[in-house]
Formats: sequence, structure tokens, C-alpha cells
Amino acid sequence: MTETVFDRVRANTVIRDLTTNSNDNVAARMVWSSIVEPGDRIAGELIDVYGPADALTFVETRTESATDIERARATLADCGHTSSEDDLHDALARWSARLEAGNIVGQLEAAARIGAQVVTPGDSAWPVGLSELGNHAPHALWLRGNPTTLERTSRAVAIVGARASTGYGEHVTMELVSGLVRKDCAIVSGAAYGIDGMAHRAALAEEGDTIAVLAGGIDRLYPSGHDALLQRIIASGAVVTEMPPGFSPTKWRFLQRNRLIAAMCRATVVVEAGWRSGSLNTAHHAIQLGRPLGVVPGPVTSASSAGCHRLLREEPCTCVTTADEVAELVDGIDSSSDIAVSDVSALEQRALDALSARPRTLDDLVVASGMSRADVQSALGTLGVRGLVEEVSAGWRHPRASRPPGN
Amino acid sequence: MTETVFDRVRANTVIRDLTTNSNDNVAARMVWSSIVEPGDRIAGELIDVYGPADALTFVETRTESATDIERARATLADCGHTSSEDDLHDALARWSARLEAGNIVGQLEAAARIGAQVVTPGDSAWPVGLSELGNHAPHALWLRGNPTTLERTSRAVAIVGARASTGYGEHVTMELVSGLVRKDCAIVSGAAYGIDGMAHRAALAEEGDTIAVLAGGIDRLYPSGHDALLQRIIASGAVVTEMPPGFSPTKWRFLQRNRLIAAMCRATVVVEAGWRSGSLNTAHHAIQLGRPLGVVPGPVTSASSAGCHRLLREEPCTCVTTADEVAELVDGIDSSSDIAVSDVSALEQRALDALSARPRTLDDLVVASGMSRADVQSALGTLGVRGLVEEVSAGWRHPRASRPPGN
Repeated sequence: MTETVFDRVRANTVIRDLTTNSNDNVAARMVWSSIVEPGDRIAGELIDVYGPADALTFVETRTESATDIERARATLADCGHTSSEDDLHDALARWSARLEAGNIVGQLEAAARIGAQVVTPGDSAWPVGLSELGNHAPHALWLRGNPTTLERTSRAVAIVGARASTGYGEHVTMELVSGLVRKDCAIVSGAAYGIDGMAHRAALAEEGDTIAVLAGGIDRLYPSGHDALLQRIIASGAVVTEMPPGFSPTKWRFLQRNRLIAAMCRATVVVEAGWRSGSLNTAHHAIQLGRPLGVVPGPVTSASSAGCHRLLREEPCTCVTTADEVAELVDGIDSSSDIAVSDVSALEQRALDALSARPRTLDDLVVASGMSRADVQSALGTLGVRGLVEEVSAGWRHPRASRPPGN
Repeated sequence: MTETVFDRVRANTVIRDLTTNSNDNVAARMVWSSIVEPGDRIAGELIDVYGPADALTFVETRTESATDIERARATLADCGHTSSEDDLHDALARWSARLEAGNIVGQLEAAARIGAQVVTPGDSAWPVGLSELGNHAPHALWLRGNPTTLERTSRAVAIVGARASTGYGEHVTMELVSGLVRKDCAIVSGAAYGIDGMAHRAALAEEGDTIAVLAGGIDRLYPSGHDALLQRIIASGAVVTEMPPGFSPTKWRFLQRNRLIAAMCRATVVVEAGWRSGSLNTAHHAIQLGRPLGVVPGPVTSASSAGCHRLLREEPCTCVTTADEVAELVDGIDSSSDIAVSDVSALEQRALDALSARPRTLDDLVVASGMSRADVQSALGTLGVRGLVEEVSAGWRHPRASRPPGN
């Protein structure tokens, strides 16, 4: 059997420079993030069912036989996924094209050269909010800066808005961000010109935590005019992306990047937005995820507020005018334990269901949950961060104070 | 039996100068409007049950005996009203004081001298919306100007706002009103300084119908600084009030006047309002009546918009920015359209992203997009039809005029 891309990646020591938690699944996630476009549902389903490594091995070693594909489809269906054989066939074809054409080891080496790191589900830095994206979740985050900044997403606010901002929008962004930093919130944005850039700058000025989420590879600090700003964010916060080095920011990747910003944060605020602003897309991701959406009004005579007023007219959102009002959106979730329970992903829920009051071993949990070993480990990791599972010498169990989980 | 006030009013020919529809009930309504404060629920209940004339006769000829009062209470109760004997006793006492102290015939003569008219339920000019006030409805409207203007309330918009308006609020009021007049809407407001005055002026400037609703008597054009404006409204539209001549505008009467503005109109719009603006009171009347409430946002840095943002945060209302959006409230059109960030599908967008100015082959596009060959071909086909992609001998490329992608 010929050596696969996955074999070459696993054998390369560079992956130990990229992660403190190198194992086959983490290595596989790096490869997955190279061969799929963001939000690839079918990849998400395969990884959910088989785990990243086994799913990747399936992609690389399949015999193209109808039997293999039909078997995979049936396994996905057993787990509630709906991909057809045609879906799988198409997916395998497009992933194979990238596996063959891409220089995945080269991408990893490029990442290591610029000091980037890879954060994956199960790492304490993995933003818990991303789990709600389910099969559309990113496979890995490429990061420059301090990974622990990502842990602050449990109290992060996305501040997004128009590139064509006005002095008014920039002033309001400054006021909101400095108030939110003083209320111990981290600020997440997209590093674009206009409101995004101002949000990051205001957070840095207040010595707050700030995270820039890019649409292209971690080696491409985009837009180039924000190179110095992004270097400052790297120095004190974090710049992240789900795209490996070498990938350019495309329109599709911007739209998908927006889902990461919304999913990562407790609340999203749109400060200024034109009628067709990309920040409306971020707002819609927040709505779809059931996250609070704050919208700052402005003069109706300002084209840069037209998108904000459109949201206020048409969407479930809250008019916000001060940092206190934004903080209410953040703390509104904190105080609601019901929402916290529904904050778990499908896999996390299945892992929770397999737990009991007495400790259970990993093998027990794999059998009881019907999930892959990797997924059980990943779920235990992310649940543990939130105190929803307790690790003891004999295994894992429900923590003492927790109520039995429900849905 | 001594002659009652009602007897003297009925016998006076002045009432024929005030109404084209003089009868006992109309005459009684003129007296009622003199002896009760606006919104007197118990007067409303008695008039509902006995009719204006018989109810007034009951007030003037009652023997103060407990039997009369108990009989009236029982009759009210039969009709679903809840006033107690104590309520009736108190009401009779306060109305009698006004009957004895007031110069009601003098008020009618004063009204006739200034050419005022009285409009009552049953007149074609009576605004249909007032009936929804039930027992809180006015007993009569005193009017100067053209009574047929009141028929236009079936398509009227209340435009109200802060006295301490800004240039921004005045500009927006002008734009909204001139657009609404062109859409055949009448403009109702309270003739106050600031937004109210600007709403009337803009309607006059567009030769539209406008109605000013006062809190005091029809002989008192208040505020005095708007005397000339009110005279212009009288000349082409109508000035109305539920208070007879001689009554000064009090705080209570301003609040009750606001209920008339809201009830008279199909929709109410607040343009600018401070945190405790009286126009918030008009807004709350509109909400209680289930009428659409439009609110114009403004800069969050403007104290004159703080009340508007408060409404947007706390109340069921609609953010409005244009006359078209206000007209939707009047016409009851729900135009919640989806926000389409782009007219292309996800797959089409990804294919577009993979294109460049120089032609790329199908194989190139499959690798660059991460899509299957079939999907790329399908997307190129549908994009080609719309001229969004150009096929040349060496492959596909962006057509000359197309814009580069961005966030």
C-alpha cells in the first residue's frame, strides 16, 4: 500500500511544533482543515461518526467500490445523518482532488515557521461556543498569539460593522468596547477596516483581551493595511482562522468566518452596517445560533446605519446604546442555566447521557454512547472545561452539583 | 322644578351655530364636555347606558337619595360596568360643583364667537378611531377649521416628538411628512414646539391635511408662540380639542390629549424623544390601543433620541426610517423580506471565488474551490447564464466588469 498524505503528516515531527496535544486525531484534523472548505457538512458527519483519523483513513484508502460507500452511508444514517451515496461520492472526489494537488506538509511547515499553533476540540483553549455549530464546526483553529486568550470567549462579545464606518460609528465602538473591557469582556472581531479595526484598537487601548478571526490562512494577515494592528493583536491576544497557511480569503470564506465570530461569542453587536454589509451575515449567524444580537442605531440619514435599522425592523434583536446594555446581553445568558444545558453539542449530549453518578471508564463510555473513542475524549474535554463532567481516578462521572442532564 | 343648566343650553339658539346636527344628545354632550375632565370613566359608563341627555338629566335631577344611586349602580352593573355606589356618589359631587360654578352657556357663546364648531359621535366627521377609547372617549370635539379634515383620520399618521428637537429630528420630520402627504396621509400632531410644530409646518408646505390636537380650550391657541402656525392650520386643516372654551391646558389634559392623538390615527410615529419625553406617553397610548407605533432611531450620542431608543428596546414598536416604512404601518403591509447578502448560491459563490482574471481550467477550479467536478460545472453553467463568468478557450474567468470579492 502506498504512503498516504495522512501517513506523511503523522510521520512529520512538525506537528509537535504546532500542538501540545499531538495524536492521530489532531494530525487528522490538520489534514481535514486543508482538504475541505469551511462548513463542509459531510466531512462533519464522517468525523462525528468515525472520529477524525478513521474518517481520513476512509477517505484515503477507500477502494471506490460501491460497497464501501454504501456501508459508510448506512453508518452515518445509524447516527441520524442524512447524506446520500451521491453526497459521499461527490465529497470523496473533491477531497481527493485537494489531497492530491495540495502540499499539506508544506502548509504545516509554513505554520510552524511563523510560530502558529493548532487548537482542536478537546484543548482547553477550544472555544466552547463552536460546538454548537455541530457538523459545520471547524476541524481546527490555526492561531498566532496566546492560546489562552481563546478561553476568554466564555465572556466574549463580537463587535462587528461596516468597513465604510463614520466618525459616529467609530466613536460609539470606542465607547462600547472600553466599557465592555472594564466589565471583563473579551472583544472578538474580523480585523477589517472600519468598525472591526476600531473594536480591536479600542480593546488594545484598554489592555483588554481581543481576538481577530481571519477568513484566509494564518500566514496572510489580511487586510494588509492592518498588518501592524494584527501584529499587536498577536502580541497580546490571538489571531485565529480555520484555514491553513496558503489559503486566500475568498468571499465564501468570509461568510464562513462570520459564523465562527458569532459562534465563538456570547453576544454579537453590529455597530454600523450598510444595507448589504457583510456584518448582517454575522448577525444572521448569531440569530441562527440563538445568541443575543445587539444593534446600535444611528441617524436614519446615514447610509452606514441603514443595515442596522434593517436588522432592528426585521430581525429578533435588541437596540443597544451603551456598554451596560450590551453587558445585559452577555449576562442574560450567564444567569440562565437552562440555556447552559442546551449549550452542549449533539456529541456532548450523547457523552453526557452515557455518564452516571458512579465513575465510568473510557471503554465503558465508548460502548454506552456508541461514539468513537476520539469523540468521547473530545466531548469529555469540552464538557470538563465547563464543569459538566468530573474526572476521578476511576474514570468520569457527573459532577456532584450537576443536575441530571436533559434536553 | 328649577331650570337646569341642560334646560338653559337646550333653549339657547347658540347651539345651532355650533353644530349642524343639534338635538338633545348633542346639546347634552356639550354640557358633559364642560363638567368632566377628559377620560372620566364613570361619565362614559352613564352615557353608554342612558345616553348623553338622560344621563345628564339624572345628574341634574337626582334627589341624592341612596335609592337613586343604587338603582343607577345596578343598571350600570347589568351592562357590565363596575362603578360602585361610592364611585357614583363622588362623581355626582364633582360634576355638580362644575355645573353650579361654571358658565356653560358663556362657553358656548365664546365658541360661537370664534367660529368654532362641535363635532360629536354620529357626525360624519367624527374620527372612527376614537370609538376604540370606549368609556374614555371624548364626549365632543371642539373644532376650528374645516370639519371634513377629520374624515381624513381614516388615513392619518400621528407625528410626535420632543420639544427640544435637534436639526436632525427636524430634518427627518420634514422628510417623513412630505413623503406621507404624497402618499395621501393626513398628519396629526400636538402643535408643541419642536417636532410637533415641524410636522404641521411640513404638512402645510406640501399642501397636505393636518390636524392639531390641543390640551386646552379651543379659544386658547397654545403655545402662544405657535399662534400664527395654528391660524394657518385652522385656515387649511383643523385644530381640535375635547375641552370647551375657557379651559387651560394642564398636565393631566396634556396626557389625555395624547390619548386622542393616538386614537385618532392609524399609526403613531415618534421622531425624537428625550428619556422622559411626553411623546413616550402618546406612544404608550398607541400601544394600549393596539395601533402600530413607529420609532425613528437617531445617534446614541443624542439625548433627544434617548426616549426613541428606550421605546425600541422596551416596547412593541417598529424602527422606521422612511415615509415608505411609515406608510407600511398605515396600510398594514408586513414587508419582512429576507436579507439576501448575495444573489448567488453557496456553491456558485465558491466557484466565483476560485475564478481569477486569467482563465482557469476545470481541474484548476476543482482544486481551488474544493468542490466536486460536477458541482463546479453546474455552478459555471448557472453563473454563465447570468454573465457572472466568462468561458474562453483556455477555461473560465471573471467577466471584464465584475467586482473582486471582499468581506
